[in-house]
Amino acid sequence: MSVKTDTEVIIGGKVLTLSGYESEEYLQKVASYINGKINEYMKMDNFKRQSLETQNVLIELNIADDYFKAKSQIELLEEDIKAKENELYDLKHELIATQIKFENTSKALKEAQEQHAENAKQIVRMETELKELRKG
Amino acid sequence: MSVKTDTEVIIGGKVLTLSGYESEEYLQKVASYINGKINEYMKMDNFKRQSLETQNVLIELNIADDYFKAKSQIELLEEDIKAKENELYDLKHELIATQIKFENTSKALKEAQEQHAENAKQIVRMETELKELRKG
Repeated sequence: MSVKTDTEVIIGGKVLTLSGYESEEYLQKVASYINGKINEYMKMDNFKRQSLETQNVLIELNIADDYFKAKSQIELLEEDIKAKENELYDLKHELIATQIKFENTSKALKEAQEQHAENAKQIVRMETELKELRKG
Repeated sequence: MSVKTDTEVIIGGKVLTLSGYESEEYLQKVASYINGKINEYMKMDNFKRQSLETQNVLIELNIADDYFKAKSQIELLEEDIKAKENELYDLKHELIATQIKFENTSKALKEAQEQHAENAKQIVRMETELKELRKG
């Protein structure tokens, strides 16, 4: 069971107390990611000239862009999984079909070997009889 | 080749002109997603009581949370792909091994059948000879 905890994070130099079920480690990771974005932007003069409101929207857009790119990647990975599942399905069927062919051929081979043993015995018997008759 | 275009989006009621290589459709989708977050938060009295600065950080945190959750999902999907690739590798090897066993058994069966035809001919020859000798 998760316990609701308070975690202090610093984002853009501002201390914020977050209350929730996420671990402190996770929240610090998210805060650090946002601070990274802010620091990157703060290096650009173009950005610093914008109003605080616009700055915030630009940061939101940038994070949302990361999210949408991750979502696209999820779609590609899911397509890849589907393709691999289809390939697995086909391979399993081919394997079963080959196993059945192998078993049937093994069975036929065993029967042929038994038949061969029978015939070999019969040939020996007949050879013996032929020898007897030729002598006689 | 991508062309840099200007796109007007409205985020949190504020009109913003974005210049970049992303399509207008994509930027409107991202803007609409951020507006959805803002609208959700604006329904909460707790949120509205916060300073604009805190409100912005909370929205950034919420979007970043979506991003990190998507990243976790990517990791899981990548593990799944790896597992499926291993399964495919194993199945392909099992299939090849079974095909080789099948081919060897088929070859052995063919030889056994040829041997059987030889033996059958020999038995007929010997039976004919035996009949002759018994008569004589």
